[in-house]
Amino acid sequence: MSGVWGNKIKLSIFGESHGKAIGINIDGLEPGIELDLDYINKEMERRAPGKNKLGTPRKEEDSFQILSGYFNGRTTGTPLCAIIHNTNQHSKDYEKTKNLMRPSHGDFTGYVKYNGFNDYRGGGHFSGRITAPLVFAGAVCKQILESKGIVIGSHVKSIEKLEDKSFNMVEIDGEKLKALRENSFPVLDESIGLKMQETIIRAREERDSVGGVIETAVINLPVGVGDPYFDSVESTLAQLLFSVPGVKGVEFGVGFDISKMKGSEANDEYYIDGDKIKTYSNNNGGILGGITNGMPLVFKVAMKPTPSISKTQRTVDIEKKENAEIEIQGRHDPCIVPRALPVVEAVTAIAILDLLQ
Amino acid sequence: MSGVWGNKIKLSIFGESHGKAIGINIDGLEPGIELDLDYINKEMERRAPGKNKLGTPRKEEDSFQILSGYFNGRTTGTPLCAIIHNTNQHSKDYEKTKNLMRPSHGDFTGYVKYNGFNDYRGGGHFSGRITAPLVFAGAVCKQILESKGIVIGSHVKSIEKLEDKSFNMVEIDGEKLKALRENSFPVLDESIGLKMQETIIRAREERDSVGGVIETAVINLPVGVGDPYFDSVESTLAQLLFSVPGVKGVEFGVGFDISKMKGSEANDEYYIDGDKIKTYSNNNGGILGGITNGMPLVFKVAMKPTPSISKTQRTVDIEKKENAEIEIQGRHDPCIVPRALPVVEAVTAIAILDLLQ
Amino acid sequence: MSGVWGNKIKLSIFGESHGKAIGINIDGLEPGIELDLDYINKEMERRAPGKNKLGTPRKEEDSFQILSGYFNGRTTGTPLCAIIHNTNQHSKDYEKTKNLMRPSHGDFTGYVKYNGFNDYRGGGHFSGRITAPLVFAGAVCKQILESKGIVIGSHVKSIEKLEDKSFNMVEIDGEKLKALRENSFPVLDESIGLKMQETIIRAREERDSVGGVIETAVINLPVGVGDPYFDSVESTLAQLLFSVPGVKGVEFGVGFDISKMKGSEANDEYYIDGDKIKTYSNNNGGILGGITNGMPLVFKVAMKPTPSISKTQRTVDIEKKENAEIEIQGRHDPCIVPRALPVVEAVTAIAILDLLQ
Amino acid sequence: MSGVWGNKIKLSIFGESHGKAIGINIDGLEPGIELDLDYINKEMERRAPGKNKLGTPRKEEDSFQILSGYFNGRTTGTPLCAIIHNTNQHSKDYEKTKNLMRPSHGDFTGYVKYNGFNDYRGGGHFSGRITAPLVFAGAVCKQILESKGIVIGSHVKSIEKLEDKSFNMVEIDGEKLKALRENSFPVLDESIGLKMQETIIRAREERDSVGGVIETAVINLPVGVGDPYFDSVESTLAQLLFSVPGVKGVEFGVGFDISKMKGSEANDEYYIDGDKIKTYSNNNGGILGGITNGMPLVFKVAMKPTPSISKTQRTVDIEKKENAEIEIQGRHDPCIVPRALPVVEAVTAIAILDLLQ
Repeated sequence: MSGVWGNKIKLSIFGESHGKAIGINIDGLEPGIELDLDYINKEMERRAPGKNKLGTPRKEEDSFQILSGYFNGRTTGTPLCAIIHNTNQHSKDYEKTKNLMRPSHGDFTGYVKYNGFNDYRGGGHFSGRITAPLVFAGAVCKQILESKGIVIGSHVKSIEKLEDKSFNMVEIDGEKLKALRENSFPVLDESIGLKMQETIIRAREERDSVGGVIETAVINLPVGVGDPYFDSVESTLAQLLFSVPGVKGVEFGVGFDISKMKGSEANDEYYIDGDKIKTYSNNNGGILGGITNGMPLVFKVAMKPTPSISKTQRTVDIEKKENAEIEIQGRHDPCIVPRALPVVEAVTAIAILDLLQ
Repeated sequence: MSGVWGNKIKLSIFGESHGKAIGINIDGLEPGIELDLDYINKEMERRAPGKNKLGTPRKEEDSFQILSGYFNGRTTGTPLCAIIHNTNQHSKDYEKTKNLMRPSHGDFTGYVKYNGFNDYRGGGHFSGRITAPLVFAGAVCKQILESKGIVIGSHVKSIEKLEDKSFNMVEIDGEKLKALRENSFPVLDESIGLKMQETIIRAREERDSVGGVIETAVINLPVGVGDPYFDSVESTLAQLLFSVPGVKGVEFGVGFDISKMKGSEANDEYYIDGDKIKTYSNNNGGILGGITNGMPLVFKVAMKPTPSISKTQRTVDIEKKENAEIEIQGRHDPCIVPRALPVVEAVTAIAILDLLQ
Repeated sequence: MSGVWGNKIKLSIFGESHGKAIGINIDGLEPGIELDLDYINKEMERRAPGKNKLGTPRKEEDSFQILSGYFNGRTTGTPLCAIIHNTNQHSKDYEKTKNLMRPSHGDFTGYVKYNGFNDYRGGGHFSGRITAPLVFAGAVCKQILESKGIVIGSHVKSIEKLEDKSFNMVEIDGEKLKALRENSFPVLDESIGLKMQETIIRAREERDSVGGVIETAVINLPVGVGDPYFDSVESTLAQLLFSVPGVKGVEFGVGFDISKMKGSEANDEYYIDGDKIKTYSNNNGGILGGITNGMPLVFKVAMKPTPSISKTQRTVDIEKKENAEIEIQGRHDPCIVPRALPVVEAVTAIAILDLLQ
Repeated sequence: MSGVWGNKIKLSIFGESHGKAIGINIDGLEPGIELDLDYINKEMERRAPGKNKLGTPRKEEDSFQILSGYFNGRTTGTPLCAIIHNTNQHSKDYEKTKNLMRPSHGDFTGYVKYNGFNDYRGGGHFSGRITAPLVFAGAVCKQILESKGIVIGSHVKSIEKLEDKSFNMVEIDGEKLKALRENSFPVLDESIGLKMQETIIRAREERDSVGGVIETAVINLPVGVGDPYFDSVESTLAQLLFSVPGVKGVEFGVGFDISKMKGSEANDEYYIDGDKIKTYSNNNGGILGGITNGMPLVFKVAMKPTPSISKTQRTVDIEKKENAEIEIQGRHDPCIVPRALPVVEAVTAIAILDLLQ
């Protein structure tokens, strides 16, 4: 099963890239929450294609329509369903090459899993476009979290081999964190950011693509959110983060680097700060025993380079069962990191709200 | 909620380090599966403490008792519950220091979450000991997988800064993979393995601890296991892997390194190999679109250094709300990697069996 | 949470009577199932209002639109979402009386649960109209079941005090069972059926309403479907049947009457019939230990009289917190039994398909 | 799957009648709840066999052992597991007749479902004995509910054709409701109660059994508990009630009788009573739109006569595939109603606590 998730908030997603509409049903929201539709639109735009030369020139109307659960400007408490109609599709593009499995895409695995009955056009249900409804849901959850003071923000941590600075894990300013959203290519060090963008443009020119890492922080979480074991904060976030197409790694706090540390370096020692208990360092990224400790929740997500490249690649023809070559046509992002970033934030907001309630 | 997981197989774990017993209830197993209890015992022993100088000298009887769901040597198809009685506990050790929050443990977060009512002795429900029932369940699932030809194996990929070789991701020999289990400190390069063990022993002598990375492979999986989005193979495995105490990072295939590659390098191109479709490389670790592609499933897990070190650390007294110091007494592992390795395999087996059915 | 259900098939419903659209997302269907849309339309029409003088003269377009999961005439295996746009709403009807809680409706309980933020127009999310998407989902499941030879059929067992004959529980003809669907007021004894219809028409003339009982049978189920305890056939069916607005009782086999029998009368004794094992009687309605025994699955559902009657009733004004009177305007069914019948079949089909897989 | 249930509270049951132990794991309880173990013991004794001549003379130690989740007299908030060891089993009794399917038991359906691998001794996992852990869990939940003023009580509504009075649905005294528990055969009309007991004794003498109906009430519930559709109060309770072996019907309020009423009779009209809103009648049993309305929650459950009777019955030999006869030996209850009554209350408490949180 692919599209149902959650404990206190239940998500149910649906849709294919070239079908009638894609959408999401969200059950378990509190009644009476005033929704800022502009806020949602802004988040949708952050993910939408066709904004600048860093991404695909393909334009998509990502305008959502709320079908239910919303009345007089507020949530009703009953299921909130929103859909996004599909337009501007070049469905015919895919007919000629439908039997050629695009390397590193879900074409082959989907073909086998669904016995060839899946909608192959534009990746079908596997399309990154299906993350648009997740951004809708995330924008709803993010608003609710912000009304409680909880802020989520992210930056591009790396593109190919270029690295941005890291968040200061022990203290993160909420306003600066929010401000990152205003930038379509958010980084902490602008000079590195420019080089990253050049790298992306160069990759496009070379008919290639590049990957990168996203670093995300959540601040002002109360202590005690999450559970040990299967519903730990790490488990819950990782399940959703690995649902985002292209994610191949997730690490919390200093992540893989903690494996290179001694206990005496890695341990986050406690101290009293007024009426709060804090830690001097935050190598664990704000989570201990699967539960938040009140320090910033920080994690990183590795995104693979866009698999759709126009360079000639070796593949197979799934019907003829023979070797073949493919040159992927169409308008693709040379790097999915900038557009994946709001999706990462969205699923983070969803996970946190589910754990918080 | 902390202890219920699964779709087709449902796990329910329980227990505290110093309570009467710990255990697991497994629902959804097929009836009529002959269980090899020796096999289970061997897996339990791999995790058990007190085996050698690399680990804690503390001995625990990890002998399990099956309470239900097992009749005449076979599973009945009804819930299989097994418990492990707690013995050899030094519960008094914890009384004196119960208000001193051990850095990087779940003491503080658990205290807040459970309003101080959690069992603090030996980490209570947060204890690594609770992974013993997971190993029991994993040993059941592993047997079932092996009867279908599916083999899971792991090695210590790194300890502190020392790195072992990596699995050859495109072709892994099943017998060699299985043989790794015979070694209590499995590595691909024995000479590095010896150095790693020296590092661990040195850490103990320095009253410190070290972390490391585990690399795991699953071979002979059919194509088409897993689902896009929330029940992707990555999502499902990551949820369980991050449930293992001490895990701070999970990456599939080449993982974070894929973010540094170009699409043309990262993409796994297809070719026909007899009646199979294979990929030349396996940077995606056997998963595309959240679904297995028939190549070896490979991932790495970052383990933090054991938080229990006997060096003096700064902490707080949670009752007095004041700064304090702690010297952790007791018998602790200077490195949890070797004992976490069979746990990682266990949850992998559980996840795979759940996805397979 | 109100709208997510299922183990192997996951349903997620949404919508309000006077919102933009109502719908359902169905996850977990097999790929490649050819859907007969006429079949679905016919089932939708069985539930649709405005057909004859027995029901409300209100006409609703119950024409569904499939948004996803359906490609080239077949299911894709990914989530199948269908919506029904709301039209012909007299939303203003409800403004004047929105604070007057209609007796025996969900108005008051919904008002309190959702702090007054629920959509009150036409019952909002509590409207019987929300069962239309269930009928859509049921029609999909019913087709799949019929392709396996499993047939579901129902008749009006009683209206007020008038009783139809009962199904012969030990042997039910599949063709006759199916044929009941062709009748908009299906009964086993036509002469009683006519009297029942007169009773309904009389109730309308008296500005009142009547209730009744639906009897449903499922035949050709294999032995061994369902589980003991929480996922028993009775538990699963009852959960869905009590989700249908207006249902106040569910009984299997002879139901409450079995409580008046001696064991020696009630027990269904076995015999060999060719290569099958059958029972002489079927007082248990085809279910033993929560699991199907291969005999017809038979149950009855009690429907309350339509709460919307135009007679003056005593109520309260929820805003003013004072006693009041209400005369419900609008076009309401004097008896919901005929239109609830296809809904009962629909949820039965859904439950059975979920249990079967 | 048979034994996992719940949303906010997760139950996981296990065990067979003649296995090592039966038990239950309860996840999701609040931390810090002081448990009254005597209270639990009393509830267990209500269900325990061997108390008097109405039931089986078989004595079972239903003494529970808490394995986890309980520390210093209080719940810890982590999973609470309790087991009951099996003793006094006459396992050999079942060897001779293991291939003779007892009519109206789960023997045949279980045999087919589990391919003959289920534990057949004493009904195995299908045994009514598995309800003992449910009573344990119910006694925990009941205490928690009582600390909030919510009281659950039941009486024997009928035995065979003998009927007790019904609860006054609009007003039920909490103390009287609680007091019913003190009686091992609770009725509202003692004179009928005596006749019922005579009927049961007579059934035993005739080597037969009788069924009956249990009526249960829950008072002092807040308004607004439950959800429309799949998690309605009726759906949730019915799912658990039909999990109790022997239950064949469930009805809320006046239940099936409401189907014989006119809307004008059935509707529960509202009035203001101080700061509360009440209804004059309570035909809907305290639930509207699936949600509590603050009136007493009242329902009835139909229990079938004990299937184990010592009269000769026709059956089949499942191995030989031929007709056979069976005379069931052993010590069985001539009527399960008195011992099922605390089980019905237990699952009610569990369901209500799950819905309340």
